[in-house]
Amino acid sequence: MQTTNPSATAPARRWDTRRTEKQRRLAAVAHLCEGPVLRPDRIVEALQKLVVSGDRVVLEGNNQKQADFLARSLVQVDPDLVNHLHLIMPSVSLPEHLDLFERGIARKLDFAFAGAQSLRISQFLQDGLLEMGAIHTYVELYARLYVDLSPNVVMVAGYMADRQGNLYTGPSTEDTPTLVEAAAFRDGIVIAQVNQIVDNPGDLPRVDIPGSWIDFVVESDKPFYIEPLFTRDPRLVKPLHILMAMMAIRGVYERHQVQSLNHGIGFNTAAIELILPTYGEQLGLKGKICRNWTLNPHPTLIPAIESGWVESVHCFGAELGMEAYAAARPDIFFTGRDGSMRSNRALCQLAGQYAVDLFIGSTLQMDGLGNSSTVTRGRLTGFGGAPNMGHDPHGRRHATPAWLDLIETDDPLARGKKLVVQMVETFQDGGQPSIVESLDAVAVGKASGMPLAPVMIYGDDVTHVLTEEGIAYLYKARSLEERKAMLAAVSGVTPVGMRHNPKDTARMRGEGLIALPEDIGVQRADATRSLLAAKSIGELVEWSDGLYNPPAKFRSW
Amino acid sequence: MQTTNPSATAPARRWDTRRTEKQRRLAAVAHLCEGPVLRPDRIVEALQKLVVSGDRVVLEGNNQKQADFLARSLVQVDPDLVNHLHLIMPSVSLPEHLDLFERGIARKLDFAFAGAQSLRISQFLQDGLLEMGAIHTYVELYARLYVDLSPNVVMVAGYMADRQGNLYTGPSTEDTPTLVEAAAFRDGIVIAQVNQIVDNPGDLPRVDIPGSWIDFVVESDKPFYIEPLFTRDPRLVKPLHILMAMMAIRGVYERHQVQSLNHGIGFNTAAIELILPTYGEQLGLKGKICRNWTLNPHPTLIPAIESGWVESVHCFGAELGMEAYAAARPDIFFTGRDGSMRSNRALCQLAGQYAVDLFIGSTLQMDGLGNSSTVTRGRLTGFGGAPNMGHDPHGRRHATPAWLDLIETDDPLARGKKLVVQMVETFQDGGQPSIVESLDAVAVGKASGMPLAPVMIYGDDVTHVLTEEGIAYLYKARSLEERKAMLAAVSGVTPVGMRHNPKDTARMRGEGLIALPEDIGVQRADATRSLLAAKSIGELVEWSDGLYNPPAKFRSW
Repeated sequence: MQTTNPSATAPARRWDTRRTEKQRRLAAVAHLCEGPVLRPDRIVEALQKLVVSGDRVVLEGNNQKQADFLARSLVQVDPDLVNHLHLIMPSVSLPEHLDLFERGIARKLDFAFAGAQSLRISQFLQDGLLEMGAIHTYVELYARLYVDLSPNVVMVAGYMADRQGNLYTGPSTEDTPTLVEAAAFRDGIVIAQVNQIVDNPGDLPRVDIPGSWIDFVVESDKPFYIEPLFTRDPRLVKPLHILMAMMAIRGVYERHQVQSLNHGIGFNTAAIELILPTYGEQLGLKGKICRNWTLNPHPTLIPAIESGWVESVHCFGAELGMEAYAAARPDIFFTGRDGSMRSNRALCQLAGQYAVDLFIGSTLQMDGLGNSSTVTRGRLTGFGGAPNMGHDPHGRRHATPAWLDLIETDDPLARGKKLVVQMVETFQDGGQPSIVESLDAVAVGKASGMPLAPVMIYGDDVTHVLTEEGIAYLYKARSLEERKAMLAAVSGVTPVGMRHNPKDTARMRGEGLIALPEDIGVQRADATRSLLAAKSIGELVEWSDGLYNPPAKFRSW
Repeated sequence: MQTTNPSATAPARRWDTRRTEKQRRLAAVAHLCEGPVLRPDRIVEALQKLVVSGDRVVLEGNNQKQADFLARSLVQVDPDLVNHLHLIMPSVSLPEHLDLFERGIARKLDFAFAGAQSLRISQFLQDGLLEMGAIHTYVELYARLYVDLSPNVVMVAGYMADRQGNLYTGPSTEDTPTLVEAAAFRDGIVIAQVNQIVDNPGDLPRVDIPGSWIDFVVESDKPFYIEPLFTRDPRLVKPLHILMAMMAIRGVYERHQVQSLNHGIGFNTAAIELILPTYGEQLGLKGKICRNWTLNPHPTLIPAIESGWVESVHCFGAELGMEAYAAARPDIFFTGRDGSMRSNRALCQLAGQYAVDLFIGSTLQMDGLGNSSTVTRGRLTGFGGAPNMGHDPHGRRHATPAWLDLIETDDPLARGKKLVVQMVETFQDGGQPSIVESLDAVAVGKASGMPLAPVMIYGDDVTHVLTEEGIAYLYKARSLEERKAMLAAVSGVTPVGMRHNPKDTARMRGEGLIALPEDIGVQRADATRSLLAAKSIGELVEWSDGLYNPPAKFRSW
């Protein structure tokens, strides 16, 4: 077959349609800006010209930081002029995000996580107001921005910019660089709201994103909204949390020599952080475990840091109130030349996936195979980062003591495993069993027409399940049946636990498949709040030498 | 237990030791620089003051781009003054990288890939000149920079900088931003060699990395070295490659509706790229498959791009000679405001891992279970990116037709799979079987004292094996025994293939477990070079309208 280059015969194809369209839009708002500085009082008019019906629009929307001024402004555009937007958001958090659908401005949604808006997303989906693309994990959503979801417009938030568009994100860098790069390098339009615009580049503390990536900056009416998601008040840590924390330290961290790790959100993991300087110290584990962390700046980690347990913490995002503390501990936290912290969710997800020994998190519901989900009926909460932290990356090739310790065969091709530990109290506060026959997520998936049930962490990725009854070392299971039996053995009086034959317990303990607290030297009577290095937010402030500045809602003194 | 804040009783701990040490070093070279601009004629002296014995040093060292001036300079420091460095390198490529060990300047090595230096690494390891940290994949190595391998000094390469340290990396951005961030935000020292220093920030085409992240820039004696690793001359594509390419298109791409993908290096995948505009066109597949790519700018993709097959290509790195072509196709490639391409290996690895349907690559050796490795005796080549492209990321949650098509059960919790396709000719050119009883990697691992055999892609992650004999749809295997039998059935007259009972072939074909070329409508006689849309580098240049500028070694006209 002879083939010819079609460009020789067909009319010349255009290869810069995206760039030309971008130039057209920029020209349309030339009268509304001075260089890259957009007039805030004309922002709605500007958005009506910069955003075109059917566009893919990234609206930041992170776990913590929100481009709220841009969201509020976008809600005000005329739906007759701008509609059928395809919104792409790491996190759907604000009422305005869904108002966009109610007003007919947006039509389709791809996202990773939804907190307070999860119920409304479900309702809108049922009511036909919203078309679902897919629910992702964070890195997966970023990945698609570079493959099949190239955005036309990206709207982000930062602390400060200069008049050339150079952006200082402050400690809450989060997803911003990753979102911006996707548009800046494919002729998309980048708009950043900032709390303050300074005249000279030299007045910026540092540059997090270069001005040549940013098309517009606009000063917002008030500082961007940020949520202190990772603050847990030690007052609310119960003896049961402390018991489970002791079991985690002895039965997992010490046993496998866990040196690098990631903690999920929750009182169970907060309890671990708070007893390292007491219980961990008694066991002589300082310097031996828990040295390198991928973690948001949890206030409950302050006592461990101050006691010298922690070598480094790389952060997904910032935490409100922790700014001055992190800035004053540059040996531990990642800070810039200006002294303030820089987080980076994409890199921290990578770090948490490939470089740490262990992920440990709490879950609300687990089935008899160890599949778990935080999805409950009527809510589409999404996935966030847990599925990535909570699986064994098969592309990992370097060995650490903990990783190698999970090899159970002498096959020369055997590889180690990331430790994925699920902590679950057998019953929820309301008296509902947490370990169930079938996850609510299965029903939710069906009701929402999702191609798959929204499982957060799959059982086959879980290496340990830790309940107040004991630890199931699931990575030792030689069959699916044995895995089920091990999990049932630590499931107490839940329906799944009731299937367990108590006669098998002694054998499984003997074989090291499960461990009860006494098997690992944990005395239930010792699990009291006196083990907490800090018993209140006030004591965390004390530990921090007054550098931690808790948000008002956590102040009780 | 009552705990007290130790800071109240113990002498105050220092929390800025890294920052103080950095300041000390910067002060020591103040006389050798003007602002961040280091004097190239005093670079060795400067390195002797900026690098301290025992430091962790990142020397870039990428797949393509090399900070070669800095490498040559570091080799010249006095080993009595600077020694026991711990080198961390994505790619060990230049003789100087190993001269550092021979001269006693470096001692320990953590890396991801070694090409031409792989033999010497093995020898140095045996001779005790080099201590191995671990061999990683790229993203895994980056990840550790943020966890337990924080670098003291990072040395990188870019095209251009201004006198404030703002850096323009050009199209070969590659690993640079990810390496720099690790030091810039943990009080490490960042040194960038550039081909040119310009006086005004406005003279930079764009800023890829802000000056506030860079401590020093130095003008190199000659432009940095870059290797055209991904150029395959169509003259060397054989009919066997074309046969296998036809099988891939019909038996994998068309069957599973593969829309987004990543190709490895090799003539097999180059053949696929080159027959899309001919064979693919005949099949009416344009617009239905192969739309979105994560790929270096392969010259062999030019005909498919020009024929309108390709919507987007996001790149790990650049490719020498493709600069002007990529810049002239901004609708396809990721380019900056200045018009030149920006690559980004960390983001492209993320994209290739989480957002594409398929990875397809060639391998030199595979065992009967589908484990494969490019490692051969006496060489430690490392892993690069293949193990990450070549596994199913369990953290993925969005569905695509291809991903869902690999579900083989009706379990409501079943999830789809990334297609991981291995192409392997049953015999290598030298007549050695490629499909073997035991991988050379197992022996190499033992001989080198590695904790694990250096397997590139594990069999349990491989969904399809494609040989010139047929395709084994391994994801359909219901047992390990069946998986072995399927693979043996397409292994020809290799030792593994000889175990196959030909009587089983018909049954396995009937059950869809394997397919021979005729089962998928591929006629062996059609597999000729006439199917190639371009048969030489010269024809690729023609297709590109003269924009592709091949390096001298590929010019034969």
